[in-house]
Amino acid sequence: MYEVIFEGDTRAGKTFDVALLITIVASVLLVVLESVRSVREEWSTALHAAEWVVTVGFTVEYALRLYCVRSPARYARSFFGIVDLISILPAYLELVIEGTHFLMIVRVLRLLRVFRIFKLAHFLKEGDILMAALKASRPKVTVFLAAVCTSAVVMGTLMYLVEGEENGFTSIPRGIYWAIVTLTTVGYGDVTPHTTVGHIIATAVMILGYGVLAVPTGIFSVELTQASRVPAKTLGKLCEACGFSETDPDARYCRRCGQDLSEPVAH
Amino acid sequence: MYEVIFEGDTRAGKTFDVALLITIVASVLLVVLESVRSVREEWSTALHAAEWVVTVGFTVEYALRLYCVRSPARYARSFFGIVDLISILPAYLELVIEGTHFLMIVRVLRLLRVFRIFKLAHFLKEGDILMAALKASRPKVTVFLAAVCTSAVVMGTLMYLVEGEENGFTSIPRGIYWAIVTLTTVGYGDVTPHTTVGHIIATAVMILGYGVLAVPTGIFSVELTQASRVPAKTLGKLCEACGFSETDPDARYCRRCGQDLSEPVAH
Amino acid sequence: MYEVIFEGDTRAGKTFDVALLITIVASVLLVVLESVRSVREEWSTALHAAEWVVTVGFTVEYALRLYCVRSPARYARSFFGIVDLISILPAYLELVIEGTHFLMIVRVLRLLRVFRIFKLAHFLKEGDILMAALKASRPKVTVFLAAVCTSAVVMGTLMYLVEGEENGFTSIPRGIYWAIVTLTTVGYGDVTPHTTVGHIIATAVMILGYGVLAVPTGIFSVELTQASRVPAKTLGKLCEACGFSETDPDARYCRRCGQDLSEPVAH
Amino acid sequence: MYEVIFEGDTRAGKTFDVALLITIVASVLLVVLESVRSVREEWSTALHAAEWVVTVGFTVEYALRLYCVRSPARYARSFFGIVDLISILPAYLELVIEGTHFLMIVRVLRLLRVFRIFKLAHFLKEGDILMAALKASRPKVTVFLAAVCTSAVVMGTLMYLVEGEENGFTSIPRGIYWAIVTLTTVGYGDVTPHTTVGHIIATAVMILGYGVLAVPTGIFSVELTQASRVPAKTLGKLCEACGFSETDPDARYCRRCGQDLSEPVAH
Repeated sequence: MYEVIFEGDTRAGKTFDVALLITIVASVLLVVLESVRSVREEWSTALHAAEWVVTVGFTVEYALRLYCVRSPARYARSFFGIVDLISILPAYLELVIEGTHFLMIVRVLRLLRVFRIFKLAHFLKEGDILMAALKASRPKVTVFLAAVCTSAVVMGTLMYLVEGEENGFTSIPRGIYWAIVTLTTVGYGDVTPHTTVGHIIATAVMILGYGVLAVPTGIFSVELTQASRVPAKTLGKLCEACGFSETDPDARYCRRCGQDLSEPVAH
Repeated sequence: MYEVIFEGDTRAGKTFDVALLITIVASVLLVVLESVRSVREEWSTALHAAEWVVTVGFTVEYALRLYCVRSPARYARSFFGIVDLISILPAYLELVIEGTHFLMIVRVLRLLRVFRIFKLAHFLKEGDILMAALKASRPKVTVFLAAVCTSAVVMGTLMYLVEGEENGFTSIPRGIYWAIVTLTTVGYGDVTPHTTVGHIIATAVMILGYGVLAVPTGIFSVELTQASRVPAKTLGKLCEACGFSETDPDARYCRRCGQDLSEPVAH
Repeated sequence: MYEVIFEGDTRAGKTFDVALLITIVASVLLVVLESVRSVREEWSTALHAAEWVVTVGFTVEYALRLYCVRSPARYARSFFGIVDLISILPAYLELVIEGTHFLMIVRVLRLLRVFRIFKLAHFLKEGDILMAALKASRPKVTVFLAAVCTSAVVMGTLMYLVEGEENGFTSIPRGIYWAIVTLTTVGYGDVTPHTTVGHIIATAVMILGYGVLAVPTGIFSVELTQASRVPAKTLGKLCEACGFSETDPDARYCRRCGQDLSEPVAH
Repeated sequence: MYEVIFEGDTRAGKTFDVALLITIVASVLLVVLESVRSVREEWSTALHAAEWVVTVGFTVEYALRLYCVRSPARYARSFFGIVDLISILPAYLELVIEGTHFLMIVRVLRLLRVFRIFKLAHFLKEGDILMAALKASRPKVTVFLAAVCTSAVVMGTLMYLVEGEENGFTSIPRGIYWAIVTLTTVGYGDVTPHTTVGHIIATAVMILGYGVLAVPTGIFSVELTQASRVPAKTLGKLCEACGFSETDPDARYCRRCGQDLSEPVAH
């Protein structure tokens, strides 16, 4: 049973995985569709029934997973274990508190299994390189974001003083919101300057935002160049104890639960 | 005749190619102009006549091309063969189903011939380097886009719950649309947050979008650096059988139809 | 006392620093909250009292700092000295001129102390690399910004002539504002073209802006690659005379006040 | 006299150059201010008079420049010669055709002299590196822009068919305008999709635009890395015949007018 649920090498395992993926996509679509008023009004009962079918299915699957792995506690604390749990909780919570069942949208996270199910080793490796570059960029990006946020607070206050409440800058938080919208070049246009001085400050903020947009890109490019030079990792085996997918080929013990990867797990 | 239509070395071939380009530009302009109400109402008959002249001309050209090449079936299945076909189909389809003739806009794709007609070897090579870099970036960009889309689904649902229908977030799909508009820094402003919590989430999404904008740029820069190091390819010869333009100088067989490039094609 | 206020190695120093940080955050929040009309109307007296408590606290702290360091004049002229002074001035200025107390928002700059307080050497080093890259990029970015601004003036005037006052382009400055909004891809949408020629020019400006967005990013990436190659600097010691945090490990004299870093400062 | 007007080494030359710069800035400000309705109505006569003073001054300066250089025809055809001429033409043209004097805004281009006047060799060199990188990027960027424009035409037509005239997509040109606004992430919001299919297409276009934004940046970064490796050029001498500023230290003849740079020019 462990092989059917956790691994996809056998025929039964493959069928199970594909069926799981289809169910996840269906469950996400259910939540999305229910939020559309016209659909909700017409198909209310059908949607409700389908949601409970999926929820019960996911609950059974979660129980089986806990039963299969050697150390249920470890699986329950792993990333996928938590995602599996919070995928079923909102439906039961709905019985107690109304309006919470939209939280079921977190089921979309279960789709991340797709990479492991199809053994997309190539993609996992690329994901690892991306993560390594992102991690290496973190200190520089933190300093940069601290500078951007400080600027946004100062500029937002300045615009609040210059433009005033009659031009849409009703408070400093709204000014800061405007500064972030402008610095990131999103530019909704729901808050815009109307005075001459406001236009001049806005122009300065835009040119500044335009220039500093270069900073995170430059940081990430440099770190990615470094990360790409590291020899590519190959996809290792799956830990039978907690279900963690080990990517380091030289790993002898699961880095999550300490299970010796070379010895078989007795169920 | 093959030489006139497919190659541009002779005087007749050159004249034919330039005339073809002008006709393509004219045919695209015809479609664009017809969509403008004031032009359509005044010049209706003239536009209609001109479109049929172009369509008949393209049909004759397509027939001649099929007749000229050694293996018409292979040409018909090549990229330019398909573009040539779908350039004439909508006009005939219009006789059966109304409103389809705007599909003639795909004639704009025929303009891509411009690179081959003028033997812009330099540009073709640059295009090859770009394509190589784009292809090499694909796995990383796929992982990245999967992460962006998952975030958009989660954030869109969150905003639907926080802002609600009275603030323009009428359904989860609309929330997802807002999340994509914000993450990509497009920022139309047709859906914007109105509550305080909504503003805070929007600010977080914008800063996130600002930061992750760096990721595809970094990926592409690194891959382009790699691709540029590969020795430049020279423009090879044109396959006489299917009209494919071979760019690998060492190619002995057409990679599209298998024609031996060294032996002459008998028509 | 010097140790308590300027350094964070002792228990008392650490407590003082953390208390200071919390006070700074609280004082910024006070200013931000007061700008919100509903909060201001209800909590007016409480906010006013709290602001004065903070101001008096900051004044005492500033006086103590001046008293502690060996050369008060040098500290008063250092970056943090000036920030400390302008953090307390607006509150007193409010007694004379009304409406100036929002300038207290500059207290947010005091938060930059956080990097020094927690001895975040790692972040300081990353900040140094970023600053080095930004400084090296300056000449190129200056030339680039000069070109962008000249383009904005020419394009803004062109749009003023083409669109005219009836389409929102009421003057050349407004046209320049539109050109900057478009070139930087902010795109508020408060000024947009309405004529056919205006649309064509706008399209050209957008594609231009899209292309030139690459320039500062490219410049910064290249300079950051250079800057990252320089061996990392380690965090040096604190100048006891002016409170400047020296980052060059080989420094023998404070680069701000000339104090010999190796000899103890007598208070 | 040549030395005073064309070179800035002598005291008189320096004074002349600075006075010229101030006049240029003033003349640009005059044009900008005149476009503001309130200023125009109140200061009409003063602005008019000031403009004629500047125009006559520029005319005299242009005549002197032509008189000074050895080959007036060559100077008149050089970049700065043309800019000088079109700086004075609109004012005289105004006497014949009304409404043309706003073209005087091209005087802003005369400001580019600032780099040469102050012998900002450093900036000129940086500008050269930027130009070299831009030139090297041109073939790749051309291919890229051709692809972007073709996509914009196809997507614009698709949206015209899907959304139709009642949703603001009144014609194919307007659809193309929308596609460019979206692909470049400007996002004015003056034309936005309203149907469900339109939202889906828009989302695809935005993600596409987000991804391809990486392409020009990547291209430019790579080319700039190449260009920066070329040993820095030093600022060469000024051609006495046409006033062109030669930057290649090994140049023996002016690349614009063929003047032998080593022999003195007789006036």
